[in-house]
Amino acid sequence: MIILGIDPGTATTGYGVIKVPDDILGREFEYGLELMDYGNIFTDKEMVMGKRLWELARKLDDLIKRYKPEQMAVEMLFFGANVKTAISVGQARGIVLMCAAKNGVSISEYAGPQMKLMVTGSGKATKEQVHFAVRKWLSKSSSRRRNRLPTKKGGHLDDATDALAIAICHVLKMVAK
Amino acid sequence: MIILGIDPGTATTGYGVIKVPDDILGREFEYGLELMDYGNIFTDKEMVMGKRLWELARKLDDLIKRYKPEQMAVEMLFFGANVKTAISVGQARGIVLMCAAKNGVSISEYAGPQMKLMVTGSGKATKEQVHFAVRKWLSKSSSRRRNRLPTKKGGHLDDATDALAIAICHVLKMVAK
Repeated sequence: MIILGIDPGTATTGYGVIKVPDDILGREFEYGLELMDYGNIFTDKEMVMGKRLWELARKLDDLIKRYKPEQMAVEMLFFGANVKTAISVGQARGIVLMCAAKNGVSISEYAGPQMKLMVTGSGKATKEQVHFAVRKWLSKSSSRRRNRLPTKKGGHLDDATDALAIAICHVLKMVAK
Repeated sequence: MIILGIDPGTATTGYGVIKVPDDILGREFEYGLELMDYGNIFTDKEMVMGKRLWELARKLDDLIKRYKPEQMAVEMLFFGANVKTAISVGQARGIVLMCAAKNGVSISEYAGPQMKLMVTGSGKATKEQVHFAVRKWLSKSSSRRRNRLPTKKGGHLDDATDALAIAICHVLKMVAK
């Protein structure tokens, strides 16, 4: 089963694709999650908002068609944000929810602290701790893929790592049911 | 020239289509704006958000393809709203901006008070005053179409009337340049 995690934003939308073994519900010691891909969808800052959102929709659509995820997971907006940020993130989030529905993929939402708690063990984990935990959860991936993961925090890869963490959080939630 | 005005929301998105005479910039006494269509796009409350947004995107796309507007105008979010409302409206607004860009139609944004000021003469106009002003601006429309306009405030037609007002506001802005 393929899970696609998304950390939405207008300028940068992080994505992370992981592979979950089909027998995961029977596994006791090792989930065997595999890293498939991760990265960012960038949109051109010079373009008007509508064009950027349309670009995001097309690129996200390509990603869904390429990896054919069974399920998607998206980071929920932090409600402490201000109204201006909320509108901006809401716009990108609307595109993500629409693309999932368009492709018939169910999508779950997780708040940042919930994701951190499930993936790292602490709802207040730092970026570095999230990076560390993501590497640990995906340690069964092929070394070629695993070695592409960032070892420390830094710029855009944070969004992509967050997207992977969201995908991992979704798996943990699935297993916990 | 056809102008499509939009008042976005997840449950109800109002739309208004008006026709502007090609010689409007030379007109002194009468703009001769014509009502083409107005109404609401509803989405199914029972559906998950992504599906509702996808439905909104498809219906909006149909509307743009049917009327082929040269320009679109959208109501900007009232910044006094709370974060939860902002996310929800932001999502619908993202879909509207994306659909305009996808179809190569430029889109302008107007805040509610600005629209009211330009269309009614008062930034604090009531719903009834907006209805009255919209009827006045569109009085040159065929009587068949004009008689469909609501005479008093009431439910969903308010969103559609607001969308017409946004379109009229955009024309006035165009003429004022």
